[in-house]
Amino acid sequence: MSSPESNVDVLIVGAGPAGMMMATWMARCGIKTRIVDKRGTKVFPHRSKKQNQWLTKQIFNGQADGLQCRTLEIFDSFGFADRAWLEANHMVEICFWNPDASGRIVRSGRIPDTIPGISRFQQVVLNQGRIERFFLDMIEKESDIRVERGTLPTALHLDESKVEDSDAYPITVTLRHLSEEEATPTQAATSTNGVTVQDGLFRSNLAPDDTAEILRAAAAKARGEGLDAKADTTEVVHAKYMLGADGAHSWVRRELGFALEGESTDYIWGVLDIVPITDFPDIRSRCAIHSAESGSVMVIPRENKLVRLYIQVTTTEKLDDGSAGSRVDRSRITPDVILKSAQKILAPYTLTYRTLDWWTAYQIGQRVGTHFSASERIFLAGDAVHTHSPKAGQGMNVSMQDTFNLGWKIASVIKGTAGRSILKSYEVERSSIAHDLIKFDHKFSRLFSGRPAKDVMDEEGISLDEFKEAFSKGNMFASGIAVNYGPSVIVAKPLESNGVNGSNGSNGVNRANGANGIDASKKVHSTQDLATGIKVGMRMPSVKVLNQSDARPWHFQERLTSNGTWRVAIFAGDLSRTDRKTALATLGVALAAPTSFLRRFTPKGGRYDSVIEVLTVHAGHRADLDLFDFPEVLRPHDEIDGWDYNKIFVDDVSYHEGHGEAYKNYGIDAAKGAVVVIRPDQYVSYVGSIADYGSLDRFFSGFMIPQQ
Amino acid sequence: MSSPESNVDVLIVGAGPAGMMMATWMARCGIKTRIVDKRGTKVFPHRSKKQNQWLTKQIFNGQADGLQCRTLEIFDSFGFADRAWLEANHMVEICFWNPDASGRIVRSGRIPDTIPGISRFQQVVLNQGRIERFFLDMIEKESDIRVERGTLPTALHLDESKVEDSDAYPITVTLRHLSEEEATPTQAATSTNGVTVQDGLFRSNLAPDDTAEILRAAAAKARGEGLDAKADTTEVVHAKYMLGADGAHSWVRRELGFALEGESTDYIWGVLDIVPITDFPDIRSRCAIHSAESGSVMVIPRENKLVRLYIQVTTTEKLDDGSAGSRVDRSRITPDVILKSAQKILAPYTLTYRTLDWWTAYQIGQRVGTHFSASERIFLAGDAVHTHSPKAGQGMNVSMQDTFNLGWKIASVIKGTAGRSILKSYEVERSSIAHDLIKFDHKFSRLFSGRPAKDVMDEEGISLDEFKEAFSKGNMFASGIAVNYGPSVIVAKPLESNGVNGSNGSNGVNRANGANGIDASKKVHSTQDLATGIKVGMRMPSVKVLNQSDARPWHFQERLTSNGTWRVAIFAGDLSRTDRKTALATLGVALAAPTSFLRRFTPKGGRYDSVIEVLTVHAGHRADLDLFDFPEVLRPHDEIDGWDYNKIFVDDVSYHEGHGEAYKNYGIDAAKGAVVVIRPDQYVSYVGSIADYGSLDRFFSGFMIPQQ
Repeated sequence: MSSPESNVDVLIVGAGPAGMMMATWMARCGIKTRIVDKRGTKVFPHRSKKQNQWLTKQIFNGQADGLQCRTLEIFDSFGFADRAWLEANHMVEICFWNPDASGRIVRSGRIPDTIPGISRFQQVVLNQGRIERFFLDMIEKESDIRVERGTLPTALHLDESKVEDSDAYPITVTLRHLSEEEATPTQAATSTNGVTVQDGLFRSNLAPDDTAEILRAAAAKARGEGLDAKADTTEVVHAKYMLGADGAHSWVRRELGFALEGESTDYIWGVLDIVPITDFPDIRSRCAIHSAESGSVMVIPRENKLVRLYIQVTTTEKLDDGSAGSRVDRSRITPDVILKSAQKILAPYTLTYRTLDWWTAYQIGQRVGTHFSASERIFLAGDAVHTHSPKAGQGMNVSMQDTFNLGWKIASVIKGTAGRSILKSYEVERSSIAHDLIKFDHKFSRLFSGRPAKDVMDEEGISLDEFKEAFSKGNMFASGIAVNYGPSVIVAKPLESNGVNGSNGSNGVNRANGANGIDASKKVHSTQDLATGIKVGMRMPSVKVLNQSDARPWHFQERLTSNGTWRVAIFAGDLSRTDRKTALATLGVALAAPTSFLRRFTPKGGRYDSVIEVLTVHAGHRADLDLFDFPEVLRPHDEIDGWDYNKIFVDDVSYHEGHGEAYKNYGIDAAKGAVVVIRPDQYVSYVGSIADYGSLDRFFSGFMIPQQ
Repeated sequence: MSSPESNVDVLIVGAGPAGMMMATWMARCGIKTRIVDKRGTKVFPHRSKKQNQWLTKQIFNGQADGLQCRTLEIFDSFGFADRAWLEANHMVEICFWNPDASGRIVRSGRIPDTIPGISRFQQVVLNQGRIERFFLDMIEKESDIRVERGTLPTALHLDESKVEDSDAYPITVTLRHLSEEEATPTQAATSTNGVTVQDGLFRSNLAPDDTAEILRAAAAKARGEGLDAKADTTEVVHAKYMLGADGAHSWVRRELGFALEGESTDYIWGVLDIVPITDFPDIRSRCAIHSAESGSVMVIPRENKLVRLYIQVTTTEKLDDGSAGSRVDRSRITPDVILKSAQKILAPYTLTYRTLDWWTAYQIGQRVGTHFSASERIFLAGDAVHTHSPKAGQGMNVSMQDTFNLGWKIASVIKGTAGRSILKSYEVERSSIAHDLIKFDHKFSRLFSGRPAKDVMDEEGISLDEFKEAFSKGNMFASGIAVNYGPSVIVAKPLESNGVNGSNGSNGVNRANGANGIDASKKVHSTQDLATGIKVGMRMPSVKVLNQSDARPWHFQERLTSNGTWRVAIFAGDLSRTDRKTALATLGVALAAPTSFLRRFTPKGGRYDSVIEVLTVHAGHRADLDLFDFPEVLRPHDEIDGWDYNKIFVDDVSYHEGHGEAYKNYGIDAAKGAVVVIRPDQYVSYVGSIADYGSLDRFFSGFMIPQQ
């Protein structure tokens, strides 16, 4: 019997954070999508302490990560940041502990964990299971997309002759469906205090990939026991686009023949998630603790009284079997081994626990993929293209941000509003970030795993000043706010400007120059000076403005929801000035013309703001103007809903929440104004003059497809 | 066959907001509870505009109300304020419109809707269906309590001989279960623009009670068609306590023989929930519009583009059948009649709509129940004891606050931690509020329904100044923050002090004097001067403080969650002063003693904070102290969880959210400190000195029951 065949617009392999973020975009944009994951239902038998019964519990209760403030901004654009914010532990302060002259650890400093002022959110910590739940709720609420678990791809073919054909399904994938039992990997469990505790070693880089094991188990079962109707069937799926978000052992990446390049170190770290019983006074702060001779601990306070400890395991010589490049014998790392290391580092403070929630161990290493896509049809994201140590709290964030960058681009191309040229920007933008990430992680890990310097003459040791300086710089990178995308058809900035303001290194620039796809004759030039606080290539910063119609304060970013829409933000300036009023009226006429880019790129019958939304922020006093003082194109009329009251805002003082000082914070002169183009992912494409309608039109014409 | 019989601690009749709030308390406190409602599942056939199909839709999509800032504080104490805050429309500004000299309406002023600074929330608007959903989600998450719909009481008996016996079930109720069909009242539906729209007349005071109609229909069906297994059976329930939250036509109230006293007026108001199409510029603000000759409109902007219009119907003479005291013929009030009134009032601005969501009409009147309880065993709440006009946006709020006041008291008595003496305070506290409410409504309705004064000589008309002044005063009442409970065993303040700071009128004071149950020999005296910003009898105001252990800013109110726990807040003052440090140590010794009220009133085996939680807020710099510098009783140790990191706070500047200035805002001198006792519903019981342990002990001894 031949396998059933079907078509889908997007096939996502892997339902971790990167795959879920992709599915969320597809749900929002109404794209026909399937998402599969080789593992079965996420439940794990777990002995309840209170009732002494076996209960099922979501697996991966470890896998916590910090959520960067940028990640929370992204969650908010999808409408669920509040859930994360409420449930998470807020990580407010970092404390540094180092040996004093006598070798005893003492608190050597405190700094804020999130740099004040860079975002309306601060870094928080929450376990991955809850974050996946928020994604799932969102996807189920807004679409028919459902995660298909126990399903894995076994064959992949890309028809290169069809990759530029927008109607084609050039990707053919064979999917195999396993029974639930087959899809559940055998997991190690550790007994502690009489309670069985799941460990995370099966996902650690100390463990081999389990895909082959899952398939062997399925085949054996099929031979021996027969199958139920659902189990171990195959089907063939034809897809327009595909995402491999299937982790560090990515099957998709290997099928494409792409490699990860990089190196491992000898440093072994253990992770314990415990409810600590300790007289160490800073256990609820993030701490970087360097002992004189016993290694380092990082403390990450979590939700529900838990604390995560990253602990340098100083007994590697005993664990290693001695052969060069060999992996450590994982069976010899136990919670007790890790705890004993922690106790040595924290002495004379005491540390013990009665509740162990999860634990794992890993070897530090950093690797980046050679390619992020095959012909801009099959893309890789997350651990499939970059792996590094978990301690910096970056992995989940960078992975989700990969697909946050990619999702709206693929959706626009599938919907026919944008051309395929924008897809090249994914690799340009994200490989640069991945290289920055592993450089950051490499430096950070070395500093953190190294021995503290005994004095200024101790050149092999890490000095406290060196560490603190690196930590502070790292904090800006780790916030996710420093991301600064290079020039492309969707980022109108000079080639040489890249990397000046932000974190992008040379990798990004080199790739950008080769792949940005900009036609010099159509080049659009930003005028960055008109809005010095809104950097082209970086995410739109947020300050509060008031709705003109009802005086409600909004963070401007709250109006930039993730629905696939581009925004043109018109900072109209002070409209009590005749020149500003005239300039706005002139722009209004151009925007309202039947030939304007607003009209040309919006599908017939589509809502006026479905492809490009125009938002206006004027300076001055809200009470001096009414909605009807603005050109109609800025507050469009709908025959069912009347006027649109959610497009015009003002930079004025609120009744209850102070003054956002938007013009001041954005560096815009109210006597001049500015126009800003913002991508669907909140990154700034262009800054220019209100008088320059031509550049706006040329910008959108560079990649958008005219509609009938 | 005899009916089955069962016991329950609390029986709630009516699943509107007052009943739901009661059930929420019971869920939180783990009390065995049933909640019944005579109406069936809340669905209503509704024609979808887009798909032209009949869909089911939750009924009561009207029934919107403003949510006071105090109500949002209460929601937050149960953990769902964020859901209301996100979904609701925020009502920020009030605009006044009045006739100018030529008789044309013009904007005569703007004020903030919520008085700035009185709460961390502002008034919002959201339909009742969503609010009931939040309650239901909460109740289902935290308990086994489920609303039993299509279930109504048909007989009630209270055994007076057993009311003081704490183990007795003195209430016997017969419940009748209807089939779904029987429990759905026949509702009027109106056709507008080709779409059938549900109206709210069946719940308006222009309609008679439908209980008898529901029962007749059930009986007829039983005779004619036979019954399925569930339908039309009866059972007998024995309850310790009972709540009648069954609306203005309350069956419970009538069974008890209690009356509502008050009066009706001739004013008829119509309500339209529409998506307006209008050139009136302030349609997204709350507006009070007085026309010269055509009556008044109040505009309440709602969620989802809806606007509620309260419109004075000026054609009453045509609708009234002429007989004195008769009710208006409701069949002659239609959306078109109401819209035409609105158009006349708003002229020369235009008003029309394509989307009508809901409408109703009502006659203004104010009535209050003669009794709020029978022997402190059966209680009445919400519309069952006070009815008034909906326009002030108070009904749902005051109803929910009735049972927010009552729920924890009943739970404490059932759990055996408090004596029945605290139950008398329900009527003392809430009848006073009900009388304030109808006085407010009476005045407000008269002002609003009256004709605007033509000039200063026009004594019959309402002057603009008179209206604006009343409106501003009313705003404080309408916030819910002004509530100031009188003296009782749980409010330690002098009898004569009541009503001075807040809104309580003479009714409340008179009742309080007669029923407060205070034994003069055990009287506890507050020292209000030690915390001038924390008024005994009012709700604890909220400012931000930092957690000592992790530097996270919290609104102090966020730590006062509704879980039935009393709080002792120790404002320890500046602990760099030797006298403050000594005073705190002395209090710590008293609290830690085996004979302290903390120990005596906490059940054996109960957690240290299960009845009374101690929270400490010190002044000065967070970095100068560690958790371990505080007496252990203030940061108790648990053998599983270690130290408690969530009890000690500091009034210091935060990294990201400024300085709460708690001592300044609370009016506490850091050189003296203060102790504040806070009820489980966040109202302040007592303010005194840190040195006065005796008053604290005497206060709790006045109503708490010693545990073995």
